[in-house]
Amino acid sequence: MSGKIRVGIVGYGNLGRGAEQAIALTQDMHLAAVFTRRDPAGVACVDPGVPVLALDEAGHWRDRIDVMLLCGGSRQDLPEQGPRMASLFTTVDSYDTHARIPEYFATMDEAARAAGTVAMISIGWDPGLFSINRLLGEAILPRGATYTFWGKGLSQGHSDALRRVPGVQAGVQYTIPSPEAIRRVREGEQPQLSTREKHTRECHVVLAAGADADTVREAIVTMPDYFADYDTTVHFITAEALARDHAAMPHGGFVIRSGQTGDGTRQHLEFSLKLDSNPAFTASVLVAYARAAHRMRTQGARGARTAFDVAPGLLSPRDPAQLRRDLL
Amino acid sequence: MSGKIRVGIVGYGNLGRGAEQAIALTQDMHLAAVFTRRDPAGVACVDPGVPVLALDEAGHWRDRIDVMLLCGGSRQDLPEQGPRMASLFTTVDSYDTHARIPEYFATMDEAARAAGTVAMISIGWDPGLFSINRLLGEAILPRGATYTFWGKGLSQGHSDALRRVPGVQAGVQYTIPSPEAIRRVREGEQPQLSTREKHTRECHVVLAAGADADTVREAIVTMPDYFADYDTTVHFITAEALARDHAAMPHGGFVIRSGQTGDGTRQHLEFSLKLDSNPAFTASVLVAYARAAHRMRTQGARGARTAFDVAPGLLSPRDPAQLRRDLL
Repeated sequence: MSGKIRVGIVGYGNLGRGAEQAIALTQDMHLAAVFTRRDPAGVACVDPGVPVLALDEAGHWRDRIDVMLLCGGSRQDLPEQGPRMASLFTTVDSYDTHARIPEYFATMDEAARAAGTVAMISIGWDPGLFSINRLLGEAILPRGATYTFWGKGLSQGHSDALRRVPGVQAGVQYTIPSPEAIRRVREGEQPQLSTREKHTRECHVVLAAGADADTVREAIVTMPDYFADYDTTVHFITAEALARDHAAMPHGGFVIRSGQTGDGTRQHLEFSLKLDSNPAFTASVLVAYARAAHRMRTQGARGARTAFDVAPGLLSPRDPAQLRRDLL
Repeated sequence: MSGKIRVGIVGYGNLGRGAEQAIALTQDMHLAAVFTRRDPAGVACVDPGVPVLALDEAGHWRDRIDVMLLCGGSRQDLPEQGPRMASLFTTVDSYDTHARIPEYFATMDEAARAAGTVAMISIGWDPGLFSINRLLGEAILPRGATYTFWGKGLSQGHSDALRRVPGVQAGVQYTIPSPEAIRRVREGEQPQLSTREKHTRECHVVLAAGADADTVREAIVTMPDYFADYDTTVHFITAEALARDHAAMPHGGFVIRSGQTGDGTRQHLEFSLKLDSNPAFTASVLVAYARAAHRMRTQGARGARTAFDVAPGLLSPRDPAQLRRDLL
């Protein structure tokens, strides 16, 4: 373990478990401890040798953890846990409430600067890898249009919204990009696409006992912000079918920059992901950025950072000369 | 012009002209001068207001140029011009002789450190954007395999080799990725692919007067390093058809990382480019990295750098708070 980056995990749901498994695939990182808001006795890590502790114990681990991965959710956990942890540790999180990123950045920046740590925020694939590709496309081809398509994939936020509808016992929601919209973008048309034209939404719902299917369907497809602006299909299924066919959490998507260089020729950049498990992949991104956060902190950086601030080389365990020789 | 980054261009071929046009699309950069080994009187820029000067004059422009774009070739020009220019200016180049990058990096690093400049080497799409994606894929998914496919596109190096064959008056060569190989990689098979399985090569050749087609074809398809390891097709065409149908310089390709996260699920990253003009696109990448090189130099960096060392945010003309708000 000597010389390895000592990593802690806060929150042991799908993302936290994915982080544990991602750390196990590295040669240069070591999982020091997992912290949970639940009763630690009820949390079992994949590796039974990993200490599981109450979140309130984290403060005692300042000298034993180099980077803390914050694996909680953006709605409830990170606004409170983020600044608290950043005042103790260099942190990496996947804060993904796009509209509130400036505010969260400012809070984390203040906490991290005061503590002399680095707070790497909004890491993952969107925000994260997709953001980098949106930036690259625009910087390289200032004349053009950028498109982000998500899916086909299970959307956690929309599945949560679905489950809050009266009469819904359980369910999941898939976001599906429109093949026709993608085709037009790939052909260089640079179309103006409405929300409805870009994606459709597909819901698989288990009805609560006594609920009326038509009433539930209507409540779902007219829900503002989440479904009203989309063509939404609702399928009613059994609890057995839900458990059998919809337990995986696949996701993915595309970032496309379609533009022209100064000579008028067409140029097309595309970055895409096809993920059989969204949380396992997101966790793997967090772990690579934990390496970068630790290195940046060691080199003197202080305060909040995002994927935009991280040189790619810092993400790799290999040394710069090796990277130039083998990957450039 | 005040406050703009002052850029110079060395070499005014397809790449240099593309750089001029890419600079014209920015709001924050200004083309100060073009330097050429040819007689400057014979070189006309797209913008006739741009001064064109003999390369030997460059030394007098140290106070008037912030970044010099080296738009010469890797074989003849850069090994000599690179270190000379790096001892005068912060530079950006597209050095792409993969096997010699470590040696070129060392030479440029020494020249740039001695002069207090930054030498940004091997910028473009491969090496460059493709390199970044190879690194990202490997850092995020340590368990997996990386594939680079090129084309369909016109390969400058192979076209040059083709034209050196006795009996060839003129010609071009297209590199074509194997659809079957790409399909297998995309399906997550992680196949071991031989050189022959990954790409085919297609040559369009104008025969010299009196040359024998079969002899020329045989000389091409058996040429070691360039064609012998591939399935190569040779088409004989007229000079008119060559000029009419093969004057454009399209290119592109794919970098794919196919891997598994620690939970055993399959994950797929793919970055692709479809370029109607390779030199115009490459030049646009150089210009975005010129912005980064200037900023890094201003912030105190000295010596050689590659795409691996550049944080994405440095490539954009927008300020960090804007980028976080709009693109993260």
